[in-house]
Amino acid sequence: MKAFRGEILSVPEEGDVRHYPDGLLLVEDGIVTSCGPYADPGVPVEKLDGITVPGFIDSHIHYPQTERIASHGEQLLQWLERHIFPAEQAFADMDHAAAIAAFFLDELLRNGTTSALVFATVHTQSVDALFEAALTRDMRIVSGKVLMDLGPPGLRDTPESGRADSEALIARWRGKGRLGYAVTPRFALTSSDEQLAEASALLAAHPDVLMHTHLSENQGEIAVVAERFPDAADYLDVYDRFGLVGPRSVFAHCVHMSERAMERMAEAGAGIAFCPTSNLFLGSGLFDLAQRDRHGVKLGMGTDIGAGTSFSLLHTLGEAYKVCQLRGVSLDPFRALHLATAGSARVMGIADKVGALLPGQEADFVVLDPAATPLLARRTKGASIHDKLFALQVLGDDRAVAATYLRGKLAYAR
Amino acid sequence: MKAFRGEILSVPEEGDVRHYPDGLLLVEDGIVTSCGPYADPGVPVEKLDGITVPGFIDSHIHYPQTERIASHGEQLLQWLERHIFPAEQAFADMDHAAAIAAFFLDELLRNGTTSALVFATVHTQSVDALFEAALTRDMRIVSGKVLMDLGPPGLRDTPESGRADSEALIARWRGKGRLGYAVTPRFALTSSDEQLAEASALLAAHPDVLMHTHLSENQGEIAVVAERFPDAADYLDVYDRFGLVGPRSVFAHCVHMSERAMERMAEAGAGIAFCPTSNLFLGSGLFDLAQRDRHGVKLGMGTDIGAGTSFSLLHTLGEAYKVCQLRGVSLDPFRALHLATAGSARVMGIADKVGALLPGQEADFVVLDPAATPLLARRTKGASIHDKLFALQVLGDDRAVAATYLRGKLAYAR
Repeated sequence: MKAFRGEILSVPEEGDVRHYPDGLLLVEDGIVTSCGPYADPGVPVEKLDGITVPGFIDSHIHYPQTERIASHGEQLLQWLERHIFPAEQAFADMDHAAAIAAFFLDELLRNGTTSALVFATVHTQSVDALFEAALTRDMRIVSGKVLMDLGPPGLRDTPESGRADSEALIARWRGKGRLGYAVTPRFALTSSDEQLAEASALLAAHPDVLMHTHLSENQGEIAVVAERFPDAADYLDVYDRFGLVGPRSVFAHCVHMSERAMERMAEAGAGIAFCPTSNLFLGSGLFDLAQRDRHGVKLGMGTDIGAGTSFSLLHTLGEAYKVCQLRGVSLDPFRALHLATAGSARVMGIADKVGALLPGQEADFVVLDPAATPLLARRTKGASIHDKLFALQVLGDDRAVAATYLRGKLAYAR
Repeated sequence: MKAFRGEILSVPEEGDVRHYPDGLLLVEDGIVTSCGPYADPGVPVEKLDGITVPGFIDSHIHYPQTERIASHGEQLLQWLERHIFPAEQAFADMDHAAAIAAFFLDELLRNGTTSALVFATVHTQSVDALFEAALTRDMRIVSGKVLMDLGPPGLRDTPESGRADSEALIARWRGKGRLGYAVTPRFALTSSDEQLAEASALLAAHPDVLMHTHLSENQGEIAVVAERFPDAADYLDVYDRFGLVGPRSVFAHCVHMSERAMERMAEAGAGIAFCPTSNLFLGSGLFDLAQRDRHGVKLGMGTDIGAGTSFSLLHTLGEAYKVCQLRGVSLDPFRALHLATAGSARVMGIADKVGALLPGQEADFVVLDPAATPLLARRTKGASIHDKLFALQVLGDDRAVAATYLRGKLAYAR
């Protein structure tokens, strides 16, 4: 058994803030056995110097776009053409994929992210490279080969090859470490009707896999979707008609949504990955948290690297605050922490495994340093946990992560 | 004479990008004598390892709000009442003011900012403290006692005391180091008509001082201004009627502006401080760069600490990019650099002194490190100067500032 002592904060549900200024976390074989106020556990105790929170969970991110972060000058469709598709071609090369996967996962750990739902590329080897690197690090990573038979030359599969490659990857990686698979049509515009139907068949055939795609990010994109699918009620309905809207579906963005679509998502149990830095960077628009709240759709946070501008979910929460402010909604820092941990876990269907340091969950956690920079130190000195947490979200970055633990083992130290 | 060799980038005018991959900067008695491609100067040469740019110029920032950065949950007027006014009361104490001024100026240098137009508080000692600290560091700082006879208890002056205190400060600090004075009515709502008239008289009496205030930041604020001044054409017109709109006037924000007001600002030669992180953080709105461009109003950048969320003008430019993206405008990184250097200098009336490393200007400069973090290093390796600069704006922070020089002397090294 391992025993950790320090200030511990966890928000398993919105409104359920568990804060132990002097807390004790007990871990056996990587699993939390208890988390609460400190009492002598009768075994050696490791001191955690900072604020310990559950490991961050990134519910939408593209690892092959790591090197294209901060690419200038476009909105979504043009940005894909000019910056992203050329970069993704390189992932046909397994060595390149492996090098980027290693860098990418190390950046996640450096930023306190312990689980993620990750876009690979159309190439099976891009998934193999990521899963191998994640297995080595014992990270909880869910990914899948991208389906895009209408993609640009060099990045196209076919409905048949997409199906077969996905099946092979599922068979190859199922049950290994903490990995999971997501059927991953890029978005409605890059797959034929046939391929969208195949994606649905994959989902039906494998009850343990997720469906991961993009939805209603950008007005230009939405207009082209409406043109191609004139009979659909809206963009969500395009996916719905192919059986792709259900409790295992994760839709990134959802910036421009009708009330009907939100209601349908709630009813279907589908989840949203809110990606504020990306939505700002590409000028996509402002996610409407109040609309989501009216319908109670499952909600998590995503960095959406490479359109997103930071690997840090702390910083991403600070940017989420700004997006909400522009919408006239004040995002509470405890609620924000929930979204980037247990909220994302629920969206990914792993809330029983991680996200809140509950007994029985895997002991993935992060030690945050509220004095990581001179400014943070000055701002948080003597502040309440609420104000410290908010300052970490607004002013924090990778430096605020003192240490990251996976299943109770130190995986990164600053 | 001092000679500096390295990659040098400067944008004296929009569209006039001066880039010397192997450049030479010659400085005599703190003044630039030449800046261009490297050629043996015949004196010992100091190597600058990174991209050397003119020192950043922050055209709107509040030093007494340093410790209130990242204060949660409000829009402008409520945020002032709840977080800011209580903090400003402490600046009646000279020791407190001196401690914050020292920390504040060190943060500026750490972020590569060498000049700034700074709000103090209503207390004369707040200005004395800042100017003393700036003089010690040889920084080009412009500030002034805040005029606010309609402020909350403990932060009020009177039209008479405000005038007399301002006169005394101008007399006390004129000609010292690189300091400058700004007549500083907080904003229309915190000054009586009498005080706004006194501010105008101060401006007229002292042709070397600036006028520094806030304009059209928040819709709630604008509504209250319209209520108090029903005869004014708009918020700008309130200031105009008191003679406060001229070539020495600097208005922070200008988020919600009529075409008439923009045209009037251009005609009067008044300047704008664009403060994107603040406008996002308080949910004030999105500055309209295209509108500004139509009228050609002078434009600089401000961090607006403490509503702003970063002392870094690099990061502020990254956030400006996002604001512009949401408005459908793509902000070029060279243009952005101009705005945070020579643009701000013009707004502050010091473009003859600093901002572009032109011969005759003071040699304030910053060495940027495009490999400051693992992610920056990977993103900028082999990239063009355009892409490196943009990556620094999107991904950079204080770590990207390797060194800051004031009048050719090292003032900060990472």
